[in-house]
Amino acid sequence: MNVSIIGLGLIGGSMSLVLRDKLGLNQIIGVDQDPVHAREALELGLVDEVAGLEEAVAKADLVIIAVPVNATEKILPGLLDIVTGQVVMDVGSAKAMICRSVKDHPRRSRFVASHPMWGTEHSGPSAARKEAFAGKAAVICNREQSDNDAVELVEKIYTTLGMHIVNMSAEAHDLHTAYISHVSHITSFALANTVLEKEKEDDKIFELASGGFESTVRLAKSNPQMWLPIFMQNRENVLDVLNEHIAQLKKFKSCLEKENFEYLGELINHANTIRRILK
Amino acid sequence: MNVSIIGLGLIGGSMSLVLRDKLGLNQIIGVDQDPVHAREALELGLVDEVAGLEEAVAKADLVIIAVPVNATEKILPGLLDIVTGQVVMDVGSAKAMICRSVKDHPRRSRFVASHPMWGTEHSGPSAARKEAFAGKAAVICNREQSDNDAVELVEKIYTTLGMHIVNMSAEAHDLHTAYISHVSHITSFALANTVLEKEKEDDKIFELASGGFESTVRLAKSNPQMWLPIFMQNRENVLDVLNEHIAQLKKFKSCLEKENFEYLGELINHANTIRRILK
Repeated sequence: MNVSIIGLGLIGGSMSLVLRDKLGLNQIIGVDQDPVHAREALELGLVDEVAGLEEAVAKADLVIIAVPVNATEKILPGLLDIVTGQVVMDVGSAKAMICRSVKDHPRRSRFVASHPMWGTEHSGPSAARKEAFAGKAAVICNREQSDNDAVELVEKIYTTLGMHIVNMSAEAHDLHTAYISHVSHITSFALANTVLEKEKEDDKIFELASGGFESTVRLAKSNPQMWLPIFMQNRENVLDVLNEHIAQLKKFKSCLEKENFEYLGELINHANTIRRILK
Repeated sequence: MNVSIIGLGLIGGSMSLVLRDKLGLNQIIGVDQDPVHAREALELGLVDEVAGLEEAVAKADLVIIAVPVNATEKILPGLLDIVTGQVVMDVGSAKAMICRSVKDHPRRSRFVASHPMWGTEHSGPSAARKEAFAGKAAVICNREQSDNDAVELVEKIYTTLGMHIVNMSAEAHDLHTAYISHVSHITSFALANTVLEKEKEDDKIFELASGGFESTVRLAKSNPQMWLPIFMQNRENVLDVLNEHIAQLKKFKSCLEKENFEYLGELINHANTIRRILK
């Protein structure tokens, strides 16, 4: 099987590393509009050759689109135009707008909308990791709009990566990921900006940073080229969760202001119940 | 050297494990008002014997107070009353009120106020870990109020744990830790409550939780008995940072509401500059 990967960053690069290792692919063809990334991917052995988009699609049995969600929305319809029998999958973190962009495309059924729920705060080909993906969920959206053989191939890809498959509609995906992933990134970006605003002594942050700080602020290093389009495409859900989050923070603020420590204790106890879900 | 540890939880227990291993202590005596924890600490080999507070102080060369900060504030003056030549140190995450509570005590100079900047979201004797503390900062506060031999012993304890020493006033400590540690915990508690409020389908959280979510929500499992007193003692600093954090989050909210994606990108780019401090 030949696989073409559009976008040779953290996700595309990691998929290449793991799939080559475990699936014994014939050839991996890479596409990246950034010539530095393309060369780096070749040097790192992530891909066997670099090609233009049309050539890469023509040569492939499976096309994996691993670019930011705004770029996916832009290139997907044209890419389906030149598809013959190939399977096309994306890996974007927002799904509804991408699915809407090809809803009535005559070759819609060759496309499988998906989202592997794995990532790190790093980006680019050098961020690719062999131990990526394992143990996490891969969401497949609107599977009834894809051909059976296409869904089966995509499921095989994800199970090969060690992921478990979760099925849901694109709208449900965008709702749940707003809670589970997108708002975590906003709080982390905002926390970094809070500390940078309040703490003028960089060396104090560096000296004192503990594991707790690092784990909550880690996501603030995430790539804006990936995250801004996610927030744009999933704007309404993210805004809804962000409003709730600000309301929750205001409860803590009010308790501190009023020295209502009994209720503050209740808020913390309630937060502790997340243990029943996350061990 | 005999060491008595008051409070056999995550911090006291971990100190015991590492110090016994690396410092070759003669005897470790434990004190815990919870008989279940005391027995557990004995069974886990964290302490050689369990005693009452007075006996433990009498037998010790060094007394380590590792209980919640409100309990430290309560027991510290009486403990210094019965100290003869021993060194007493605490490990609390808020320092100003504790230091004020013994400011004029005739044996103030036998006490060293300190805070090892390490922890996990787990608590109790079974949470103790041998690989604790290493590579993190240990803050010593108001060292000029402690005898030289007392500070030297406490520094030896922390360097034995693999920590680097940072000196500052108790007030400066409480200001910096509000940024670096305390507000991270509030955002994590509030994020857990947000998700628990919005996401009624527990199984979706469980199925979809990714590394990003786990790292931002991990701290929400933290023990209220430890954290509520920290927020109470460091109330003004925490409130100040929390107000700034809510203001920062509102910038993200406003960008999303107004679809001002250019400024949203700037906010994310600014957050990215935390990279210059946290690699």
